Amino acid sequence: MKSSLHFLVAARQHEMAALEQLGKACSLVVAMSSLVHALQKERGLSNMVLASGGAQGAELLAPQRLLADAQIANVRDELDRLGPHPSGGSGARLCNAIAYTLQGVAALPALRAQVQAGGLTPAVCTDAFARLIAGCLAVVFEAADSANEPEISRMLVALFHLMQGKELAGQERACGTSAFASGQLQPGARAQWLHLIESQERCFEVFASLASARVLLLWQAHVAGDTDMAAVERMRRVAHTATGASLNRSWSADWFAACSHRLDALHGVETLVAQELQVLCLHKLQAQEQALAALQALPPGAEGVAGAIEGGMAFFEASAPPDAWSPDAVGAPALGRDILSLVQQQAQRLQTMQSQIHEARTALHERKTLERAKGLLMAQHQLSESDAYQLLRQTAMNQNKRMQEVAEAVLAMAALVPTVPGAPATPAAPERR
Amino acid sequence: MKSSLHFLVAARQHEMAALEQLGKACSLVVAMSSLVHALQKERGLSNMVLASGGAQGAELLAPQRLLADAQIANVRDELDRLGPHPSGGSGARLCNAIAYTLQGVAALPALRAQVQAGGLTPAVCTDAFARLIAGCLAVVFEAADSANEPEISRMLVALFHLMQGKELAGQERACGTSAFASGQLQPGARAQWLHLIESQERCFEVFASLASARVLLLWQAHVAGDTDMAAVERMRRVAHTATGASLNRSWSADWFAACSHRLDALHGVETLVAQELQVLCLHKLQAQEQALAALQALPPGAEGVAGAIEGGMAFFEASAPPDAWSPDAVGAPALGRDILSLVQQQAQRLQTMQSQIHEARTALHERKTLERAKGLLMAQHQLSESDAYQLLRQTAMNQNKRMQEVAEAVLAMAALVPTVPGAPATPAAPERR
Repeated sequence: MKSSLHFLVAARQHEMAALEQLGKACSLVVAMSSLVHALQKERGLSNMVLASGGAQGAELLAPQRLLADAQIANVRDELDRLGPHPSGGSGARLCNAIAYTLQGVAALPALRAQVQAGGLTPAVCTDAFARLIAGCLAVVFEAADSANEPEISRMLVALFHLMQGKELAGQERACGTSAFASGQLQPGARAQWLHLIESQERCFEVFASLASARVLLLWQAHVAGDTDMAAVERMRRVAHTATGASLNRSWSADWFAACSHRLDALHGVETLVAQELQVLCLHKLQAQEQALAALQALPPGAEGVAGAIEGGMAFFEASAPPDAWSPDAVGAPALGRDILSLVQQQAQRLQTMQSQIHEARTALHERKTLERAKGLLMAQHQLSESDAYQLLRQTAMNQNKRMQEVAEAVLAMAALVPTVPGAPATPAAPERR
Repeated sequence: MKSSLHFLVAARQHEMAALEQLGKACSLVVAMSSLVHALQKERGLSNMVLASGGAQGAELLAPQRLLADAQIANVRDELDRLGPHPSGGSGARLCNAIAYTLQGVAALPALRAQVQAGGLTPAVCTDAFARLIAGCLAVVFEAADSANEPEISRMLVALFHLMQGKELAGQERACGTSAFASGQLQPGARAQWLHLIESQERCFEVFASLASARVLLLWQAHVAGDTDMAAVERMRRVAHTATGASLNRSWSADWFAACSHRLDALHGVETLVAQELQVLCLHKLQAQEQALAALQALPPGAEGVAGAIEGGMAFFEASAPPDAWSPDAVGAPALGRDILSLVQQQAQRLQTMQSQIHEARTALHERKTLERAKGLLMAQHQLSESDAYQLLRQTAMNQNKRMQEVAEAVLAMAALVPTVPGAPATPAAPERR
């Protein structure tokens, strides 16, 4: 027969097991951050080789591929360490995102062969790498979404948005590089470029709202106020205000260099977040271990304290809410306290954690809703990504609503009127520009 | 080195393990439903004994206690079967709710001794049993909140609201019985009674919005349109319109009998939901087993299909969204399909499940928010439960908002201005009536 104390301890053990699993997921996320950076560098060099017909970048591309391979091996090691702990729906989604990413990794040699053969345009090459990186980011997303510890959850959500913003910055590098190289900014490319700028800024806003003070300092010193950023902003302005006029082709290399420096600086911030994340996981695990050990050290007779001392009615009379839980009090439950008050304290702590986790995840879910609504509009009305985004934004402005609400309405409508699989998409809607 | 197929299978295994654990939690919930019913009967008889000074009900109370003990033993068996599967935050909350309830079960003998000695008023006895039953309901709440399968989640949320509404009906029985017995309805008791009616109706509304067609039929036939319900409604009306005048004391027994029949009928509906729930768990588990077996039967070479057949670039070219997932297609992935499309299908299925679970849980979380805000107002302003509820409702009406939004605002403010533990509560606010 299992006692009340048994389940009080079991609750801690659940938390502990989830935290151990989360620690492994965090290590995977850190490895993913380095892999994504390596793939972004490889994408930049691959585009350089493709755009120059092999004249430029080839001598850097070969070693960069080896570096990316090393990061892939690193990710695979972390995957082997993940372990089989079941954790329900979020665990399933994480595994599925990993399966997707591994499909992309398996297809990477074929992509490289095509780059080598010069059989791709830089635009197609950019999209292909973007798809693989999107898989890596989906893994980070699911890891963040499955985190059951508020501080770790918050930091993972921050890191996800930093990585997502950086990837959009990487795509902006490719977009600008080919615009400058061609000497022209076509209307489609212009809209896409503006969309990439706006989207990355939204990501960085969420990141900055969640990041620690220490990370924010580095962020402000090395990224937001950097000379590379100033150069990027100047070239952005020139490209977008030079209507009709042609762009200075020689700027292509300057743009690429400034953007690349910016990506490196962003990766530096990522690395700091990754370090903080791993330290945090260790601290949390130690605190859980201590709390669990303290509970397990309770004398077997503790169970009966409430009944024996207070005449058995304590359960029915304990009408006062338990003391507010303080995070510092994690360590040692005083031996004198009875099980009932420990249970009540734990209930309050778990409730607080749940609310805080819910808060941290909101940013993730809002992003997901927006992305899904955008994807749906793109498929239904054959819109570009930036047009679908503008449609959502304009509708929100017209209806005086948040974009989030409009996106939810779009998805809710789609759930009621599912499109027939295989049916041709609706012809371009009048909203299309 | 783990393959893409490995993680595709692992995702299913996560779901499967979560489903097995959920099946056990459902069995626990079913046992809790019977325990709560037995405790409600014991409470009714205990009050009868206390109110009559031992003259009535004593011969029924002793066997009813044995029946309740049998249900406790049954719950303990289910607890032994629960198993140690970790499932993160929700698992921890479930364990903690169990620990709390077991504290109440351990204190039950002391409560019974006090009843036997006649050392309690019926009101205190009602509150004591209500507290123990609230523990049982918290277990059901957490089981519903941890469910990671949409249909099971929906059914558990329905069952929770049915059980919660039934408990409020049980408290109404006690409230009305003592009002009729005393021949007077005091203003405080009158407000509490109205609050109990309104709260149980809200619970039953949520239940009816989530229940299956079959359950709803039984609900309408045996509860909503029953002759006992008509009698209950008539006595409610008479008691609440008889202002100033005294109540007919002889109605106390009629009221108790009609309410008791109603509780039995409600338990009949619970039993049907419980049966459906267990059948549903079995079906879902079988479907998962089949889907998992089909995945595991894929030839080892399937991994390479995308790479081998389509020149390796399939990952980068598969731009079409996967077919809409149909629930009937759970069974057998066609062998000819490649891993990539299986991964994409699974992603879509998991996404759909997540949205549906989110929807089912909304009712739970809205209820929790409202209860927490009510509790906070009660503690801060020393209000009764019904006054706290009226305050929330009136504020919502004045501000033209949903009660849910007002409750969230109350909690958000409290998080910013935490009350000092142990500090005296704010003196009764002017809002108090």
